Amino acid sequence: MVRFFEEVGDVACRYLTLSGENAQHGKVLRLKPGEKVLVCDGKGTEYLCEVTDAGNMTLTVKERRASTGEASVRVSVYMAFPKTDKLEHVIQKATELGADEIVAFPSARCVSRPDEKSLKKKLERWQKIAASAAEQSGRGRIPQVIALGSYAEAISRASRADKALLLYENEQAVTLKMALSGGEYHTVSLLTGPEGGLEEREVAEAREVGLQVCTLGKRILRCETAPLCALSAVMYDAGEF
Amino acid sequence: MVRFFEEVGDVACRYLTLSGENAQHGKVLRLKPGEKVLVCDGKGTEYLCEVTDAGNMTLTVKERRASTGEASVRVSVYMAFPKTDKLEHVIQKATELGADEIVAFPSARCVSRPDEKSLKKKLERWQKIAASAAEQSGRGRIPQVIALGSYAEAISRASRADKALLLYENEQAVTLKMALSGGEYHTVSLLTGPEGGLEEREVAEAREVGLQVCTLGKRILRCETAPLCALSAVMYDAGEF
Repeated sequence: MVRFFEEVGDVACRYLTLSGENAQHGKVLRLKPGEKVLVCDGKGTEYLCEVTDAGNMTLTVKERRASTGEASVRVSVYMAFPKTDKLEHVIQKATELGADEIVAFPSARCVSRPDEKSLKKKLERWQKIAASAAEQSGRGRIPQVIALGSYAEAISRASRADKALLLYENEQAVTLKMALSGGEYHTVSLLTGPEGGLEEREVAEAREVGLQVCTLGKRILRCETAPLCALSAVMYDAGEF
Repeated sequence: MVRFFEEVGDVACRYLTLSGENAQHGKVLRLKPGEKVLVCDGKGTEYLCEVTDAGNMTLTVKERRASTGEASVRVSVYMAFPKTDKLEHVIQKATELGADEIVAFPSARCVSRPDEKSLKKKLERWQKIAASAAEQSGRGRIPQVIALGSYAEAISRASRADKALLLYENEQAVTLKMALSGGEYHTVSLLTGPEGGLEEREVAEAREVGLQVCTLGKRILRCETAPLCALSAVMYDAGEF
């Protein structure tokens, strides 16, 4: 069934109209009256609809339900600003893999950090990448892409999760599995460094505010591989697949 | 410590010489007599060496040992030929994540499949990508990149692993976790489809030769995301991190 992300003003509405790009897409697909389509509000609710009028793309809502594509665990991916193409790669893949939000932040060794002026435009672009990946992968929510102004803000915000974890290549004793064991969890933060890694001082600061430092194994993962590897493992651990 | 992949003819040798690109790289790094470097033979053995002569890059072997960067579980990533850039992406990332080999094969819906003539050159290029990723991630072995001629060959070869798994988006009952549970495993095959997915007939054929069909969850993963997600989860399950 075709799926569209569309803003839905009134959750109890009986009719919906596809707008802008969605309406165009519906015409390209030659949707006909009576055909079933799925409209997701991008916030966790989906509407099973039937095309009523293919001219102005009006749909009749047949059923409203919670999206089935969302993970039971909410994982926030905290990533130190890497080069732009890598961040875009992580936004796309983390969305597919079910991340709840992607949070970019500066750290000491970041070689790339967008200035205030270009950030607004970039965030719009990143949000679009997330929306498109959410649509393609069948998610019910579009993860939010957030850019923070400081490392201190990032670790403080990350520390609020049930499992607040920093993945660090120099950690050898504590594995991700150890960090995830012992007690249920509903929210997870996964924090990883930039191309050059985090400084020891930064790792110590994260530890102080309550993040647990753990390893992703013996191999050194690139900065764009580590968050996706950790996210896959958390989803697996949480029973998603 | 700097690491080099270099062919080692005699495992009991007392001296090694960096050749070709490695020698050049050593000069760029301005290696000096007495400096320690690590030479990996790419087959699981590494040599802790000291620079003896920085002119012709001769090294004295101080210690020979098994590589520490290898996973205890041997995972073969079987991927239906995707578009070239995606295959290259998977080769690089799967190497970082510890795959033992990457096996590409044709399937019914493959839109991209190299012809016999270009394949030899491509395999050389793919092997180089694996070598470079192995070096950067600190592995002791360079995974082999293999191209098979038929789907039948792929499933037959894949079926020989302790856990021979096909990840399929239409499977709903059996999760990867269920498939990995019950008994120890030392070798795993992970088989995934191309951009358009595998045909039902192909999935049935795989089942017949003994592959277990399982899901990676509710979301539809792109063809280049699925093998890396599954590989991360297997490494996690096997206790690598």
